[in-house]
Amino acid sequence: MAHPRASALFAEGRTPRSEGHGPRASALFAEGRTPRSEGHGPRAEVICVGTELLSGKTNTHVPHLSRLLREAGIRLTGERTVPDELAAIRDAVSGALSRARFVIVCGGLGPTFDDITRAGAAAAVGRALRYRPDIFARILRRFRRHAMKVPASNRRQAWLLEGARELDNRRGSAPGQLLELPGGRMLVLLPGPFAEMAPMFAEAVLPRLGRLCGGLRTRKRVFRFYGIAESAADERLGRLLRRPAPGVEFTILACLGLVDLHVSVAARRAAGAEGELARIERRVRAALGRRCFGTDGDSLESVAGDRLRARGWTLAAAESCTGGLLGERLTRVPGSSDYFLGSVVAYHDGLKESLLGVRRETLRRWGAVSAPVVRELAEGVRARADADCSVALTGIAGPDGGTRAKPVGLVFIAVSLPGGTTVLRRLFAGNRSQIRERAASAALFELISRLS
Amino acid sequence: MAHPRASALFAEGRTPRSEGHGPRASALFAEGRTPRSEGHGPRAEVICVGTELLSGKTNTHVPHLSRLLREAGIRLTGERTVPDELAAIRDAVSGALSRARFVIVCGGLGPTFDDITRAGAAAAVGRALRYRPDIFARILRRFRRHAMKVPASNRRQAWLLEGARELDNRRGSAPGQLLELPGGRMLVLLPGPFAEMAPMFAEAVLPRLGRLCGGLRTRKRVFRFYGIAESAADERLGRLLRRPAPGVEFTILACLGLVDLHVSVAARRAAGAEGELARIERRVRAALGRRCFGTDGDSLESVAGDRLRARGWTLAAAESCTGGLLGERLTRVPGSSDYFLGSVVAYHDGLKESLLGVRRETLRRWGAVSAPVVRELAEGVRARADADCSVALTGIAGPDGGTRAKPVGLVFIAVSLPGGTTVLRRLFAGNRSQIRERAASAALFELISRLS
Repeated sequence: MAHPRASALFAEGRTPRSEGHGPRASALFAEGRTPRSEGHGPRAEVICVGTELLSGKTNTHVPHLSRLLREAGIRLTGERTVPDELAAIRDAVSGALSRARFVIVCGGLGPTFDDITRAGAAAAVGRALRYRPDIFARILRRFRRHAMKVPASNRRQAWLLEGARELDNRRGSAPGQLLELPGGRMLVLLPGPFAEMAPMFAEAVLPRLGRLCGGLRTRKRVFRFYGIAESAADERLGRLLRRPAPGVEFTILACLGLVDLHVSVAARRAAGAEGELARIERRVRAALGRRCFGTDGDSLESVAGDRLRARGWTLAAAESCTGGLLGERLTRVPGSSDYFLGSVVAYHDGLKESLLGVRRETLRRWGAVSAPVVRELAEGVRARADADCSVALTGIAGPDGGTRAKPVGLVFIAVSLPGGTTVLRRLFAGNRSQIRERAASAALFELISRLS
Repeated sequence: MAHPRASALFAEGRTPRSEGHGPRASALFAEGRTPRSEGHGPRAEVICVGTELLSGKTNTHVPHLSRLLREAGIRLTGERTVPDELAAIRDAVSGALSRARFVIVCGGLGPTFDDITRAGAAAAVGRALRYRPDIFARILRRFRRHAMKVPASNRRQAWLLEGARELDNRRGSAPGQLLELPGGRMLVLLPGPFAEMAPMFAEAVLPRLGRLCGGLRTRKRVFRFYGIAESAADERLGRLLRRPAPGVEFTILACLGLVDLHVSVAARRAAGAEGELARIERRVRAALGRRCFGTDGDSLESVAGDRLRARGWTLAAAESCTGGLLGERLTRVPGSSDYFLGSVVAYHDGLKESLLGVRRETLRRWGAVSAPVVRELAEGVRARADADCSVALTGIAGPDGGTRAKPVGLVFIAVSLPGGTTVLRRLFAGNRSQIRERAASAALFELISRLS
């Protein structure tokens, strides 16, 4: 039995790189064989300051900054949240500056006694803080414009790190600060509230970082797939994902039957990025075919709506297990009243008969969750709503009500068009809410396919 | 103009503590006047390992662990995400151990070359890693049970920090590790996937931490309010929130018209915590009255369902602007088929007439978004579905379609019971989806109120 020291074990990392370590399906980095910790571009770290941030809140700052930094060609290589304690802030800032070229600190710029980011940052870089009456005058004016009394404590917000540039805050009282340091490094202090931080970063910090990093132009697109598993999409796109051109980054995200491929292309010139993106789009569409139902802001419901509008057709729906979800999704799209007439949620079998004309004999013989019933639901609502086409759903969303022959997750879907009615039988995995979402998506995709 | 050194500025923190620094509405800590950075209980820090975690993902581990730690009387005083780099992991672990009594590391325990948390932790604490054939044998057995081939790289998961206890992972191959260190400190290594990390922490780590920290018993309850603004609820509960008994913690969260008061009571004995919680509940109910519609897992739809079931009544719905959302929410509740018959989504006016019997004259004279129409919708669906009671909604969800007289956000709601029909007029703020959610909530609350 060996007792290697830690560093020896790490050497045990001889595990050859080619040994089946494919990139993880959900986060494919450029150059899949490069260890994920390498990569290109300068390093940045983000520090969030605030005891309250450690009390169970979700951090939305870091994902946001991470995405924007990456688009500018900068890698986020560390993230940290510290309480409102001077030593913690000071140590976090100096530690980050020793590892990363850009350090972004969010929070702790307010007027109260526990807002001590300015002091912590000053201690970390060994600079003085300078009181700037012009900044305080601006804060005063802003308060007065809103006819508010200025607490004396706001004076604290007018202290600037020596040599730092003030970043104007049009959405709050705390100005940000940007300090350039030797070696091309930069320390940025941003206010804590997301609504103040995000625009200040986008407007005053990101363009500067972009210029420092060579001014890459980024183009992004999301390709949306339905009817294919994440792993199968990954396989079909194999070579494209695993050998991306420089500056190209792929991420695959899957949720309830929908798979999204996020593509980001960075290049020196916008035309270069656009050309590369167009090349990628051709390859994605060739590999995925009609399973690629849309891009970017498209949803199954918006694409179905586009197809209906293009034909000038109207749609009605009949739902059972989804309880109204299909109609709710169709009407999420503004302007859906152009084609969507309505939906009948016939949860109780009595309504399937009385409102949609499903025959009692069909219900008795086949049961409410069956192909014949879903067909009658679709044809019934289409006739009664006087619609050009219709979609119907009936199934068992659980958690109870399943049997051996008709388990939880079994859903029948019908789409009725002037050309006829098709019926699908599907078995969905998941809990009640997931089964309902998957069922509605399947119905929408079948509608899209029939309208193609 | 002063040029104070950073530490001098911090002394400028003479800003008296009483100067209007009330607790923030959304996170009221026990002893609102105590600076947020103080507090009681031992300190813990969490470190997440994984380059992919820095690529824009939301961190759900930290909020989860933070809540559970707090309930055990332990404060999370730092959180950090580091890439898969040995030095970064080592420095993060040793730094955290220098500040906090408990350090929890998540991730990097997998079998691949970039899973180096074991090595980084070993380097931080200066311990050897010991190969444990019995652990590898268990991993082998688990793979075989699923008829899977065991990659040789999984052997890496059988290395344990010298002196550490193995934490069994029933949901994955990577065992956790728990190492007790001098001075009552503890280092815990947990697997990265949430589905493996969360149960291992709850089952194998939390009970031990709880015992070390005096074994406080915690009781929690969420009180759910509707029909009152967050600030108004805060005001009504004023004294209760601002002078909590020791061990009591309040948090108020508001979302789309619903306000939740989270209460956590920690005490040496379970009976003490329960008694305090009961006292708080009496005061909350006295202050909020019927606006407190439920607790914990209750939702407006489940409480409405409980009231219907208690009376043995059935419900039908008629929707327009919500497009099916009301039915979808009612049927989120398992077993809702006991009382919910169905819903007619009459998005197009033609269906309001043909399916629900709204008179053309009423539509023509008052318009689809009006009190007379919503009344006819409610009474129409109640009659046609042969239901004991009904709810109806019609409104303008936007973004288009608003006029001066009928702006976006205007919604009419009707509830029809054997005792008669009531109609409400409401104007909701927000975007399309928010207006729809708020409208459905208002309809459900009106139904609950009428059934009380």
